[in-house]
Amino acid sequence: MIKRTLTVSLLSLSLGAMFASAGVMAANEPIQPIKAVTPENADMAELGKMLFFDPRLSKSGFISCNSCHNLSMGGTDNITTSIGHKWQQGPINAPTVLNSSMNLAQFWDGRAKDLKEQAAGPIANPKEMASTHEIAEKVVASMPQYRERFKKVFGSDEVTIDRITTAIAQFEETLVTPGSKFDKWLEGDKNALNQDELEGYNLFKGSGCVQCHNGPAVGGSSYQKMGVFKPYETKNPAVGRMDVTGNEADRNVFKVPTLRNIELTYPYFHDGGAATLEQAVETMGRIQLNREFNKDEVSKIVAFLKTLTGDQPDFKLPILPPSNNDTPRSQPYE
Amino acid sequence: MIKRTLTVSLLSLSLGAMFASAGVMAANEPIQPIKAVTPENADMAELGKMLFFDPRLSKSGFISCNSCHNLSMGGTDNITTSIGHKWQQGPINAPTVLNSSMNLAQFWDGRAKDLKEQAAGPIANPKEMASTHEIAEKVVASMPQYRERFKKVFGSDEVTIDRITTAIAQFEETLVTPGSKFDKWLEGDKNALNQDELEGYNLFKGSGCVQCHNGPAVGGSSYQKMGVFKPYETKNPAVGRMDVTGNEADRNVFKVPTLRNIELTYPYFHDGGAATLEQAVETMGRIQLNREFNKDEVSKIVAFLKTLTGDQPDFKLPILPPSNNDTPRSQPYE
Repeated sequence: MIKRTLTVSLLSLSLGAMFASAGVMAANEPIQPIKAVTPENADMAELGKMLFFDPRLSKSGFISCNSCHNLSMGGTDNITTSIGHKWQQGPINAPTVLNSSMNLAQFWDGRAKDLKEQAAGPIANPKEMASTHEIAEKVVASMPQYRERFKKVFGSDEVTIDRITTAIAQFEETLVTPGSKFDKWLEGDKNALNQDELEGYNLFKGSGCVQCHNGPAVGGSSYQKMGVFKPYETKNPAVGRMDVTGNEADRNVFKVPTLRNIELTYPYFHDGGAATLEQAVETMGRIQLNREFNKDEVSKIVAFLKTLTGDQPDFKLPILPPSNNDTPRSQPYE
Repeated sequence: MIKRTLTVSLLSLSLGAMFASAGVMAANEPIQPIKAVTPENADMAELGKMLFFDPRLSKSGFISCNSCHNLSMGGTDNITTSIGHKWQQGPINAPTVLNSSMNLAQFWDGRAKDLKEQAAGPIANPKEMASTHEIAEKVVASMPQYRERFKKVFGSDEVTIDRITTAIAQFEETLVTPGSKFDKWLEGDKNALNQDELEGYNLFKGSGCVQCHNGPAVGGSSYQKMGVFKPYETKNPAVGRMDVTGNEADRNVFKVPTLRNIELTYPYFHDGGAATLEQAVETMGRIQLNREFNKDEVSKIVAFLKTLTGDQPDFKLPILPPSNNDTPRSQPYE
């Protein structure tokens, strides 16, 4: 639903794509720059933004999409595993919503095929927002200010979970983060990276990180086993992809997360088990690549990873329509 | 710390002030229009905005000032009594932060003399954000991006709770809501109110509501007993002002809340006991004025009250600096 620039469409097709931008070609790099997107339907994206920030999609009236995918904080909550209805501890670390449209599928186990399907999950999950799709529809439909927008966007003022999640997904597709130091370097500004950052990138490529963390999102394009050479030690019971496929071979197989904005999206891994980037790099080297990075190497890879922080969301705080006497009331303590 | 326009300064001094605006004089009205404010120190207000949105001021890393004073929703949480750390139910309804700089004091019982003093409370309240001032200082001080702003605003990069709350208060002082239909009417646009709204205003004045709900904030300027003619029935144990003064005469005496943006700030009263504006008007008439408003009167007063909704906050979502290895970590489940 998003019209990317031609450049990016081509880039998405091939790692070795040609660059249209001026400056030095970076055609042989396994990572490609991110380009801003223009939503095909700006009104729909605006509606989706409001819904993304509306805590009335939850039973309590307290938890919105933005609670756990906080756009002030890299699109995450920066908590090991998220807080849900009545402070229930969630099962898994909330992935960033930034650049999530580039993922091959959504959730750590890929159980939702796209952002629209993903958005429907937490609303009705008793451990997360704990509402139901029916109540969420009634809440939104009760407000004429929302209905007016649905009419403008969808042609009628009918409010369905399908339309709600379509709009949220349209908004989320705008949440890309171009403009990072690394993208500037890719686009030909050879001064954009300092020596440590560049050495970090070469280590990242040379030691194999890039086998999984590649493409414009520096990840998000494949499922991989967590613990290739050594098992990943965790108390988190998630088995990843196996929950979706039923195949024992998919035990501990997870979607490779994007490394875009990784400085902002701590803590790391599906269990939030790594508090720092240094710890994450050390662990990945050891269990995925059978390599013990020394302190200097870790430091340089981390320096490179911090160059992946791009332009953060740049929009006005949405103002939400008030509930009225027809709006089903939140039930925070029930 | 805020430089209001001369017009508003004068208006604040006297109910019968003269209007500088063009059009018909509204000099004899007991309510005065709100004017936009320009912060004396824009950098400080910007820093305060970031802190207002930063959930790392709470122990969990999940609750910010904006969680309970949600600026997308009239500066409140629209919950009977607020949700605090580990989903503890708060003792009282969260008052709106909008136009709160006009209150004679802060909190329902007026125990904080100003916004700065107020802001320090929830951060360290074990039932609310559950952090300590010392940890909040360490969290903020750990981030060079914050320290740089403190240096620019305060002359040194020292982070103290005093400076944190000074900045938050400076931001909050910008949260005024001019531009309501009623203010347009006050300023001379006699078409701004329809017949019902105007009749509602006349009822509001004629039946005595305006004795307490007056001035630019339509309230906030005095303490009054809740239950003058008949007792207010509630299970909420709050005794209001008596907790501050120790005087039995102050039992059930509360700060009169602002009625600005009242359509947005449901549910009503210190216990959140009135879900709708109709219910609130009916109850106020009965227990405060010894008057049974009929359905038509309630409807007209509510129509008037809805004309008090002004321009809502209009700024970009703040982007917060990331925690780093020196930042004390949030403890959401401890």
